[in-house]
Amino acid sequence: MEKFVEQTLLYDFYGELLTERQQQVYESVVLEDYSLSEVAEDLGISRQGVHDMIKRCNHTLEEYESRLHLVEKFLCIRKQVQKIKELAVGYNAGEITEISNKILEEL
Amino acid sequence: MEKFVEQTLLYDFYGELLTERQQQVYESVVLEDYSLSEVAEDLGISRQGVHDMIKRCNHTLEEYESRLHLVEKFLCIRKQVQKIKELAVGYNAGEITEISNKILEEL
Repeated sequence: MEKFVEQTLLYDFYGELLTERQQQVYESVVLEDYSLSEVAEDLGISRQGVHDMIKRCNHTLEEYESRLHLVEKFLCIRKQVQKIKELAVGYNAGEITEISNKILEEL
Repeated sequence: MEKFVEQTLLYDFYGELLTERQQQVYESVVLEDYSLSEVAEDLGISRQGVHDMIKRCNHTLEEYESRLHLVEKFLCIRKQVQKIKELAVGYNAGEITEISNKILEEL
């Protein structure tokens, strides 16, 4: 999986377990693509400090996943629901397509 | 939801984030229904000590759920997949039933 997609998924699932400051920095750098220097200046810390925070956040998020495997589980379910959605077309099963879409939005 | 079902679900999702000792006590008392006294004797701690550990575990598990809402999310998806499964019967869509069953087993 692409690094950015993986980081986004991990953050979606476990981001709330980071501190508020960590969330703020992680969102700026990883999700909104601000540069380390920009975020460093905003927060009044060094560029290296921001870099280290992101590294620690990634480590924490990966640690949660290695214990709970919830991203893995949900990706697996998403794949299966996508398969159901494809099959539903063949059966002309509009209601099933509709529910599949709803699940995929939530996952 | 019944208290036991709720505790089991929370433990299924977040149990790995408890310490090993907490997991051991929680499984014995909540999931396997040993008495507080039995577990206390096994571990060489007081009955009150076991009681307090369970209370702390419940609090920790509920705290994770209040931040991540993954049990809530999972219950919602399970309900929708069950609906798909019911609908699949009407469409005589065996493949969809099969995938639905697989998802329900994993959830």
